[in-house]
Amino acid sequence: MQMTFTRIGIGMDSSVTPIRHGGLSLVQTTDFFYPLVEDPYMMGKIACANVLSDLFAMGVTECDNMMMLLGVSTKMTEKERDVVIPLMMRGFKDCAMEAGTTVTGGQTVMNPWITIGGVATAVCQPNEFIVPDSAVPGDVLVLTKPLGTQVAVNAHQWLDQPERWNRIKLVVSEEDVKKAYMRAMDSMARLNRTAARMMHKYNAHGATDVTGFGLLGHAMNLARNQKHEVSFVIHNLPIIAKMASVAKACGNMFQLLQGLSAETSGGLLICLPREQAAAYCKDIEKQEGYQAWIIGIVEKGNRTARIIDKPRVIEVPAKEKDGELW
Amino acid sequence: MQMTFTRIGIGMDSSVTPIRHGGLSLVQTTDFFYPLVEDPYMMGKIACANVLSDLFAMGVTECDNMMMLLGVSTKMTEKERDVVIPLMMRGFKDCAMEAGTTVTGGQTVMNPWITIGGVATAVCQPNEFIVPDSAVPGDVLVLTKPLGTQVAVNAHQWLDQPERWNRIKLVVSEEDVKKAYMRAMDSMARLNRTAARMMHKYNAHGATDVTGFGLLGHAMNLARNQKHEVSFVIHNLPIIAKMASVAKACGNMFQLLQGLSAETSGGLLICLPREQAAAYCKDIEKQEGYQAWIIGIVEKGNRTARIIDKPRVIEVPAKEKDGELW
Repeated sequence: MQMTFTRIGIGMDSSVTPIRHGGLSLVQTTDFFYPLVEDPYMMGKIACANVLSDLFAMGVTECDNMMMLLGVSTKMTEKERDVVIPLMMRGFKDCAMEAGTTVTGGQTVMNPWITIGGVATAVCQPNEFIVPDSAVPGDVLVLTKPLGTQVAVNAHQWLDQPERWNRIKLVVSEEDVKKAYMRAMDSMARLNRTAARMMHKYNAHGATDVTGFGLLGHAMNLARNQKHEVSFVIHNLPIIAKMASVAKACGNMFQLLQGLSAETSGGLLICLPREQAAAYCKDIEKQEGYQAWIIGIVEKGNRTARIIDKPRVIEVPAKEKDGELW
Repeated sequence: MQMTFTRIGIGMDSSVTPIRHGGLSLVQTTDFFYPLVEDPYMMGKIACANVLSDLFAMGVTECDNMMMLLGVSTKMTEKERDVVIPLMMRGFKDCAMEAGTTVTGGQTVMNPWITIGGVATAVCQPNEFIVPDSAVPGDVLVLTKPLGTQVAVNAHQWLDQPERWNRIKLVVSEEDVKKAYMRAMDSMARLNRTAARMMHKYNAHGATDVTGFGLLGHAMNLARNQKHEVSFVIHNLPIIAKMASVAKACGNMFQLLQGLSAETSGGLLICLPREQAAAYCKDIEKQEGYQAWIIGIVEKGNRTARIIDKPRVIEVPAKEKDGELW
């Protein structure tokens, strides 16, 4: 849970603090949590991507420094520790390098549970970040990663839990679940950096990243922050293939179709001028090889967000390709 | 345990990262650990002072921003949580305010153990921090807080553990231990900010803060970082009153007189030109009402540190004053 204090200056996903020097601001965020995938290297990457996502949501593309926060489980044997922790650290650092930044230190403690997280800091000129408060009626909403990471991670755990598996085995195969899990990992470990860079090119009016509160939760936060009297209406839900079916088979448990299923290191939800949005999505796809979607519109309203009654579920990817993830 | 990575630029207690703008550097540190005193408000202050201490050790006096890292114990009742956590947060924020900085956010997670810590960031011009590598033979070593915080905290816990208490009751009274505990808390919650400011005024050649590795551990780290071929020799050990006796009664357990007893939020250990050191200590005492001590010298050597065979123990305070802590 991101803490919200009285903020100096502005910010939503990151704190923005004007500093003493030359009109610059400190844009900062921190996050730490518990492993949710089995592969320690991927877990390190996901943790790093997740921390950086709060900077990217503010349109910041250059992170000046990262620090790593580690809790090493007191329940691990020395051997487990010596294998798992270096892999996790390597994943974190490799992801930082991919983002063009470096990890200069941090803190490690012993703890009953494993924890991993970090701190990301950028020192920015005013044009280097985008205040997420300028949505106007007529804008559209773009999402840069599919939903359903939590559903996929849980379904994957249920492969070993017969009583849980029985609830969903009618709607998915073991292979479907394994593929969805791989897609979720790939998606969570992916940086929102290109998405952030394109926010400047296509004049984004604001953005947030989708994490623990789900798509609708974060959309509501973003709507609440707007200067103008606007509301967000979401029509489309891009979801990792088969995970909508799994969520439905679990009843109301995930609230995925209600937009409330928690995501980890999710995509950016961005308000863009209508005439720029299609070009934004096309450009992202060209540069990254991943899709982005127009999922809703900005109307006049009282700074809330909602999902329409029967949203269209977009399976991601639309078609299976043999031997390919997306 | 502070992690050490390849550092961009320089730094010892904090990382120093040159940034893209105007010759500035990002000076940053993070720390989190477990409560060691019973009073949640004091624990918050101590955690904050402890984080900031790494900036102060670099001579940085203006922290631009802090973030708070909290782990809320899963074992607390809701009521315990609602009382303890806000107090801890308040202590942290009050201490930040005292240091002239603010807390703009952070992260909270549920965890079996309570954890508390934070991140401190300053954006500095080159003259705003002191690279801790310029000690020369003839310098002296100054320490700005007494040792013995861990001994005091442990002795205080032993008041409720008869088998432990029996080991030390011949050398201290219950009242001695309670007073030492109060002194330890007061000392740990105190900021090293004046000490950092005076480092500039009196031309310090380098400094570090004394924490988990004990006085000698940190002295060794500092010695290892020096440009010149120097060694540190420590003659005097200022120790919270009666705690040297307690440590002796416990045999080798704390290694306090060996300089290896862990401290929390300890003082700065500073290399100063000999002719400036007395003035430094006098100035600190005048401004803060707390003593600082010349505890050793810098000689020609191979970048190590040692404590002489029979160091002089300085009881702090030297004399009890009725109704006063120091």
